[in-house]
Amino acid sequence: MKHTISVLVENHFGVLARIAGLFSARGYNIDSLCVGETADPKISRMTVVVRGDDAVLEQIIKQLNKLVDTIEVFDLTTERFVERELVMLKVGVTGELRSEVLAISSIFRAKAVDINPEAMVFEVTGSESKVEAFIDMMRGFGIEELVRTGEIAIARSPRQSPP
Amino acid sequence: MKHTISVLVENHFGVLARIAGLFSARGYNIDSLCVGETADPKISRMTVVVRGDDAVLEQIIKQLNKLVDTIEVFDLTTERFVERELVMLKVGVTGELRSEVLAISSIFRAKAVDINPEAMVFEVTGSESKVEAFIDMMRGFGIEELVRTGEIAIARSPRQSPP
Repeated sequence: MKHTISVLVENHFGVLARIAGLFSARGYNIDSLCVGETADPKISRMTVVVRGDDAVLEQIIKQLNKLVDTIEVFDLTTERFVERELVMLKVGVTGELRSEVLAISSIFRAKAVDINPEAMVFEVTGSESKVEAFIDMMRGFGIEELVRTGEIAIARSPRQSPP
Repeated sequence: MKHTISVLVENHFGVLARIAGLFSARGYNIDSLCVGETADPKISRMTVVVRGDDAVLEQIIKQLNKLVDTIEVFDLTTERFVERELVMLKVGVTGELRSEVLAISSIFRAKAVDINPEAMVFEVTGSESKVEAFIDMMRGFGIEELVRTGEIAIARSPRQSPP
């Protein structure tokens, strides 16, 4: 099952390596991971998307909670949340194919962020399923590069936690 | 100096922990890190934003290149690239403050993605400086939660690399 785990940590160095190590030590592969500062630069939030055995994940969450730098761990899978991902991709289109690609991208509300004589770069945000549908549509045009952030998520209901 | 490093890796488990460990072993703190699959699910792309000593970073890049799972390492700082970050934040606004917040968010082309009687959730994408300007404007309204992906980047010029 897919789980989205949100971990609030003190922004010390080595924390990321320790947390990534916790997952890999138990043979849990990470689908995606994002880490960035919160509104308080001393605190970072990590969003980890993983797939695998629920019992093992429960153990990992317990161990995450024991790390001194961990402030809070949420398994968002059990809450109502908004999930978003950002993807940038470069397609090698020229000539009249450009308008075809632009028409498709407008359906997904993707934005062209760069163009040169050989390629166009698009940016799209949305849920995993939306961005994957866009990527699938673009495959036919030849994706030259693709970068995705992995999902971030925020709970819909109010919650008492540091910003 | 700020550096944006893009690392293409085989999608094996433990790779993330090893790479994060490389940075922390040399006392290099990571500003932000994103990792997600590329168009080929066997290959992941990591985008790491770091600040610090250029000579040490050069050493880290050399070591990254030596890891068996590394396919390619780019220091995008030396190239023309498009950088984007995705941020979601929840502000505790109610009543007429809602329209004030909506007016500000439209200037930044931020989108309201959730609303409840006590709060609103916004999504914004852009360069680091743009999203930080938006965050600063929202601070006055009381940020209850903030999640950011960290930057991803794609080179403007065509490049020969796996998708």
